[in-house]
Amino acid sequence: MSAETLTVELGDRSYPIVIGAGLIDQGFDLAAYLPGDDCLVVSNETIAPLYLESLGRCLPAARIRSIELPDGEQYKTLATVEAVLDELVAARASRDTTVIALGGGVVGDIAGFAAASYMRGVAFIQVPTTLLAQVDSSVGGKTGVNHPGGKNLIGAFHQPHIVLVDTGTLATLPDREFRAGLAEVIKYGTIVDMEFFAWLEANMQLLLDRQPEALAHAICRSCALKAGIVTADEREAGRRALLNFGHTFGHAIENTLGYGDWLHGEAVAAGMLMAAAMSGIDVSEQDRLRALIAMAGLPTSPPEVGAARLREAMQLDKKALAGKLRFVLLNSLGNAFVTADYADAALEDSLGSAEA
Amino acid sequence: MSAETLTVELGDRSYPIVIGAGLIDQGFDLAAYLPGDDCLVVSNETIAPLYLESLGRCLPAARIRSIELPDGEQYKTLATVEAVLDELVAARASRDTTVIALGGGVVGDIAGFAAASYMRGVAFIQVPTTLLAQVDSSVGGKTGVNHPGGKNLIGAFHQPHIVLVDTGTLATLPDREFRAGLAEVIKYGTIVDMEFFAWLEANMQLLLDRQPEALAHAICRSCALKAGIVTADEREAGRRALLNFGHTFGHAIENTLGYGDWLHGEAVAAGMLMAAAMSGIDVSEQDRLRALIAMAGLPTSPPEVGAARLREAMQLDKKALAGKLRFVLLNSLGNAFVTADYADAALEDSLGSAEA
Repeated sequence: MSAETLTVELGDRSYPIVIGAGLIDQGFDLAAYLPGDDCLVVSNETIAPLYLESLGRCLPAARIRSIELPDGEQYKTLATVEAVLDELVAARASRDTTVIALGGGVVGDIAGFAAASYMRGVAFIQVPTTLLAQVDSSVGGKTGVNHPGGKNLIGAFHQPHIVLVDTGTLATLPDREFRAGLAEVIKYGTIVDMEFFAWLEANMQLLLDRQPEALAHAICRSCALKAGIVTADEREAGRRALLNFGHTFGHAIENTLGYGDWLHGEAVAAGMLMAAAMSGIDVSEQDRLRALIAMAGLPTSPPEVGAARLREAMQLDKKALAGKLRFVLLNSLGNAFVTADYADAALEDSLGSAEA
Repeated sequence: MSAETLTVELGDRSYPIVIGAGLIDQGFDLAAYLPGDDCLVVSNETIAPLYLESLGRCLPAARIRSIELPDGEQYKTLATVEAVLDELVAARASRDTTVIALGGGVVGDIAGFAAASYMRGVAFIQVPTTLLAQVDSSVGGKTGVNHPGGKNLIGAFHQPHIVLVDTGTLATLPDREFRAGLAEVIKYGTIVDMEFFAWLEANMQLLLDRQPEALAHAICRSCALKAGIVTADEREAGRRALLNFGHTFGHAIENTLGYGDWLHGEAVAAGMLMAAAMSGIDVSEQDRLRALIAMAGLPTSPPEVGAARLREAMQLDKKALAGKLRFVLLNSLGNAFVTADYADAALEDSLGSAEA
C-alpha cells in the first residue's frame, strides 16, 4: 500500500500522520499504536455506516466498541462528551484503552476531549474523514467543545498516537464541504509557503477532481506546514497566531450571519481576501489570491451584510480580547505576520469592500 | 512572616509549596503568581465564610470573583465542574485568568479540573485547608471528579502555579478529619523515610496539639517525599504506586462499609497495618507502626465485617484491574515495594485479622 508519512515532532509525544488512498480498506495496521487490546471508536450517524465496519480491518485482534453521535456542530457539547465517557465507564475501559475518532472535526474534538479526560488521559487515534479535519485538526492537539457562551471554551490539549488519513474517505464528502476544506489548504500556502501556493495554482483542478496523489501531496504539505508552526509553539501565542489568517474577518462574517449559513472555510476564504486587502500588498498579489480562491469555488467577497454589521461583530471580538484585536497580515504572499498595530483606515477600507 | 518553601521540580512547570502559620491573614503576596489581574476563587459553603475574605489580603489589586460549592464528596461531579466553568464564562474570563482552590481535596479536585479545561488550561493556585489536601493533593497534579461508575474516573493532570499552605487553617478542621490526614503523613514515613517515621514517633503529641512548627515540618516533609516520588514518575505507574501503601486494603474497607462511614484516612490506617502483616516484616516493626497509628488516634484494625466481605471487595478491584491485583508491601519500615507476585496465604492471613 502506498502512503506518505509525516512525523509531528513533539519529543516523547511525537506521532506520525500517515496519508494514502484506501488505507482503511487495505487494513492499515493500527494495532501497533494501541497500548492495550481494546478501543472505543467514536463516530457519527453519517460516517459510521460508511467506514466503521472497514475500520475493523485495521484492528483485527482488538476488542472494538463503538458509539455513534448525532451529526452536527450543535452536538459539540459537554453533554456529548459525557455520553462518550459513560460509554467508556460502561465498558469498564482501563487506562490502556484507546479512543479512536472516526469522522470530521466535531467528532475529533469530542472524542479527543473524552480521551484526555477519561482516567486523566488515555490513548487517542484520529481517523479524520473530512478535508478540513485532515489538514487542520490532525495537527496541534486541540480538543474541546462549545459552551453556550462561546465556541471551543472547554477542552484540553491531547496529542494523538497516530493520525490515519485515508484520502479515499473524501469520495463521500459533499462538494461544498470539500471546497471549504480547500480554504485552509490555501491559507497554509498564503501565510508561509509561496512554493506550495504556486503548486496549488497549478494543481487546483486535480484537487477538485480528488485525484489521490494530488490530494495526498496537498494534505501532507498542509500538515507539515501547520506542524512546523505549532511544534515551535505548542501552547498557543506567538507564531501559532499565523494560523488565524483570514479568521478575524471570517469570524465576523460567521457571527453576522449566524453560524451555519456560511461554512467556516467559506468565511475564511472571503476573510483571507479582506486581510490581504488590509495588508496593502500589491494588487497583483491580491489578484493571484483571489484567482486561486475562485478556482477552488470559494467566495471571494463577504456576504452583502454591510460594513457596519461586520464592524460591530469585530467590536464584540475585541471586547472579548480586552480591547486588543490582533490581525494576521501579509508582507507578501507566503509571508504573514501578526500585529495589533494597524491603521484604522486600512481596516475600514477592507470592511468597505463589504458595503452592501 | 516565617514560612518554609519547597519547590516541586517539574521543569518549566515547577512550582513552590509555601508552608507557614497565618500566611493568609498576613497577606502573603499571591499576585506574583497570577498571569493576569483577575481570578476566580472556588470554595465551599463551610470554608468560604472562614477564609474567603482574608484571602483577599493576598490579592489586593486583583479582580476577585468567587463561587461557593456545596460541601461534600457527593458533589465531586462533572455537573459541579460545569457550574465552575459557567461562572468563568459568565465572567468572560480570559486565558490569563487564574482559578484558586480554597478548601479541601474535593474543592481542589473540582477547581483544578475546571482550570485544566477552561480554554484548554488556565492558571491554577491551591490554598488547601485540610491536612489531607495539604500533604496529598498539593503534589502530583491530579485533578478530577467521580463518575457514578467509579471514583476519580474523569479528570486531568494540571499543575498549580503555587500551593499556599497556611497551617493556621487547620485550627478549624474537625479533630477526626485532622487525624485522618495524619494517616497519609504516617504513610510517607513508612514507605520511604525511616528518619521521618522516627520523628513522627517523637512528635506525634505536638502534631495533635497542632503546634505550628511541628505541623510545618510534617507537611513540608510529606510534600517533599511525595514530590520525590511523583516527579520521578509524573504520569503514574512504577514508583508512584508506592503511594498506594495501605490503599488496596483501605479501598476494600471503604467499599465494604460504603463510602462515608469510615474516613479515607481511617481506612488507610487499618489498611497499612494489614499490608504490614501481609509483608511478614518483624513483629516488632509491625508493633511500632501500630503504636504510631494508635498514637494518632486512628484505627489499628479493620471494622468487624469479616474477611469474606473484604475478600469480595478486593475481587471486584481485581476484576477492574483485569486480574492483576498489585500490593505495596514492606521490606522493612521505611522501605516499600510494589508487587503483583504475592503468596495467597499471606493475603489470607492478613484478611484473617478482619475475621468478625
